Amino acid sequence: MRLAELSARSGVPTATIKFYLREGLLPPGERISATQAGYGEEHLHRLRLVRALIQVGRMPVATAREVLAAVDDPGLDQHSRLGIATWALPGPAPGPGPEEEDDAATRTARQEVGSLLEHLGWDQFGPGSPAYETLVRAVATLVRLGYPCEAGHLRRYAHIAAQVSEADLDLLESLPGEVEQVEASVALTVLFEPVLLSLRRLAQAEESARRFRG
Amino acid sequence: MRLAELSARSGVPTATIKFYLREGLLPPGERISATQAGYGEEHLHRLRLVRALIQVGRMPVATAREVLAAVDDPGLDQHSRLGIATWALPGPAPGPGPEEEDDAATRTARQEVGSLLEHLGWDQFGPGSPAYETLVRAVATLVRLGYPCEAGHLRRYAHIAAQVSEADLDLLESLPGEVEQVEASVALTVLFEPVLLSLRRLAQAEESARRFRG
Repeated sequence: MRLAELSARSGVPTATIKFYLREGLLPPGERISATQAGYGEEHLHRLRLVRALIQVGRMPVATAREVLAAVDDPGLDQHSRLGIATWALPGPAPGPGPEEEDDAATRTARQEVGSLLEHLGWDQFGPGSPAYETLVRAVATLVRLGYPCEAGHLRRYAHIAAQVSEADLDLLESLPGEVEQVEASVALTVLFEPVLLSLRRLAQAEESARRFRG
Repeated sequence: MRLAELSARSGVPTATIKFYLREGLLPPGERISATQAGYGEEHLHRLRLVRALIQVGRMPVATAREVLAAVDDPGLDQHSRLGIATWALPGPAPGPGPEEEDDAATRTARQEVGSLLEHLGWDQFGPGSPAYETLVRAVATLVRLGYPCEAGHLRRYAHIAAQVSEADLDLLESLPGEVEQVEASVALTVLFEPVLLSLRRLAQAEESARRFRG
């Protein structure tokens, strides 16, 4: 297919596709004439992946390039590919609170998060990963503002998060190819965040009606 | 207590307290001398609530004033107070996608969200509430980008969100007073969002290891 059709079928503007080609994120098409190139289904798949990384996942181009290298590496298993792709995602919106601070609240939070993950046996994403650091920062804000944030409550939240991740991976496994799965792992991780948070707020109102209606 | 002590005990800077006093969000203290006022425990509680609404919940001052009026209204039950406070919260970060659009994807999303909530019997927060509109927008983005977003998957997410809301309301009910509960409902709704999202990402990596490790 020509560039115009690739754009129409992917929903990605031609100017954006040309940018991805220039940056080497998308392999060049097959040269048809001096001014035209042809693209195949593999370009369409790769384009969806690049869009997931850059537009949905908001990764810098250099990071996206590393993820693509991992996807193309036949020596890696699918767990490593998914891990490299989602590790590289910028953390979820961290909420209010200072960007970085080495105060007592942060030290307490780092300790709490460490012992929570040790208790759960979760060791895939350690300190330094965006998700881990966002969790530390969020717990530190709770501690700093004097809100309850006990180990038991965090564990209950973690068990619920595990259920979310099972639903997420079930959806992922329903997709046909390994590249599609990497694409979806990035896109769906990000795109289902506001789904989960808004459903939580709607559910809270229902739960409040059950408990508190006069 | 004097202004300086109110500031120290609440962690809110004196300049911010003076702003809240000027805006009528905090009732004036008892006049001690021509230049000094005294504040009591009720000021401390109200100050925490105002901080939760404005700083953590990022509500405009006019909205915060409406919530405070609801908290002070003896004719309202606690469910109504909590509902008014959390309804007024700006929606969770909506993720990528256009701010507002009346395209086919948005119409599909509005229909899907409507039938999901009807199926669940959730009717506390309807169309127009920030949480509902964020959900519509998030589902529209999934539809627009061609990602799966079936009713069954949304229901599974909703049932998990209901579990989160039970944990949230258990925490709320462990707090002593009704004003503290309104404060915490706003603050904890917002502050636990990054906790939930980062735990989901950590859990995904564990679940991926279980399923995909070569």
